[in-house]
Amino acid sequence: MTNETLARQFAFLEEADKLKNILRATPIHDNSRRENSAEHSWHVALYALVLSEHATDEIDVSRVIKMLLLHDLVEIDAGDMPIHEAHDVEAQAVKERAAADRIFGLLPPAQCAEFRALWDEFEAAETPDAVFAKSIDRVQPLALNMASGGGSWRDYDVTLEQIDTRVGAKVTRGAPAVWTYIRDRVARFFAAN
Amino acid sequence: MTNETLARQFAFLEEADKLKNILRATPIHDNSRRENSAEHSWHVALYALVLSEHATDEIDVSRVIKMLLLHDLVEIDAGDMPIHEAHDVEAQAVKERAAADRIFGLLPPAQCAEFRALWDEFEAAETPDAVFAKSIDRVQPLALNMASGGGSWRDYDVTLEQIDTRVGAKVTRGAPAVWTYIRDRVARFFAAN
Repeated sequence: MTNETLARQFAFLEEADKLKNILRATPIHDNSRRENSAEHSWHVALYALVLSEHATDEIDVSRVIKMLLLHDLVEIDAGDMPIHEAHDVEAQAVKERAAADRIFGLLPPAQCAEFRALWDEFEAAETPDAVFAKSIDRVQPLALNMASGGGSWRDYDVTLEQIDTRVGAKVTRGAPAVWTYIRDRVARFFAAN
Repeated sequence: MTNETLARQFAFLEEADKLKNILRATPIHDNSRRENSAEHSWHVALYALVLSEHATDEIDVSRVIKMLLLHDLVEIDAGDMPIHEAHDVEAQAVKERAAADRIFGLLPPAQCAEFRALWDEFEAAETPDAVFAKSIDRVQPLALNMASGGGSWRDYDVTLEQIDTRVGAKVTRGAPAVWTYIRDRVARFFAAN
């Protein structure tokens, strides 16, 4: 029984390694290469740990961190869809749900159900934990785009107004003080570049 | 006050991005490149989440995950020291403590103290949470070395006996069933390669 459990757990953990080959639109700080979704997942989990006191509602930061460790695994099959790139939202959601079926399905059944519930909660963005997790996931690329001299904003010709709409609304919902702070820096970046 | 807090928190989070440029001895699964310490930190946090039921003692997996998110940040200044490479353990420990002073010191004081305590606990490897975290940190490279056809074992001419000594003893302490399972796979890998 333990062996069967461990075999399934390792199958999942070894499959997860493929997330290191999924590239995002945002470069890392020194603009030397694009960020991958595995290191992004670590970085946003760290963001959540550090910024938890700024959440709108009371949150359980440990649950938020678990969501963020799991949230991008579906990209192994579905790829990363940059927020500033036009795409078919519903078609992408269908691909991601199929990916969640396959990837979480590698785990023992009880763990599969637990992780899938966390991923579904994150995607639905209704509970305080999920709202905060989604906010944090949108904040981290702002800092990287500034550090790298424009990053995906430059590649996609993004305006400050588009950032307010596509990013600001979500970050404000889960972490308003964080948005006030970073929006000021982003505005100064746009004024200077 | 919030602005000063957020400025320090973002200084830390933006500094942390440099961990994505620290390369480890182990390659990723497809042997296309070496793993970096940021994506490694994500992967071992996921390992801890998935394998927590196999811990020797009762653990708080959320604390273990926090330790693992933080444990390699000192490598930004001190570099990664491969376990199969001969090195001056005490000199490396001195470098890592200086790095912890600097990097956690970027944070607001209370958060600096909290994170430093978690890092010190991990390094001391005495509490159940730290013992399990250390075990998990040693397990993940085994799977990657097998997947990549030998990885750092090949580079450092490592024998099965050396793995038993350098890895097995630590993994057995925190997660004995995991060691039994993976050691069997490692032995079969060595027999076949």
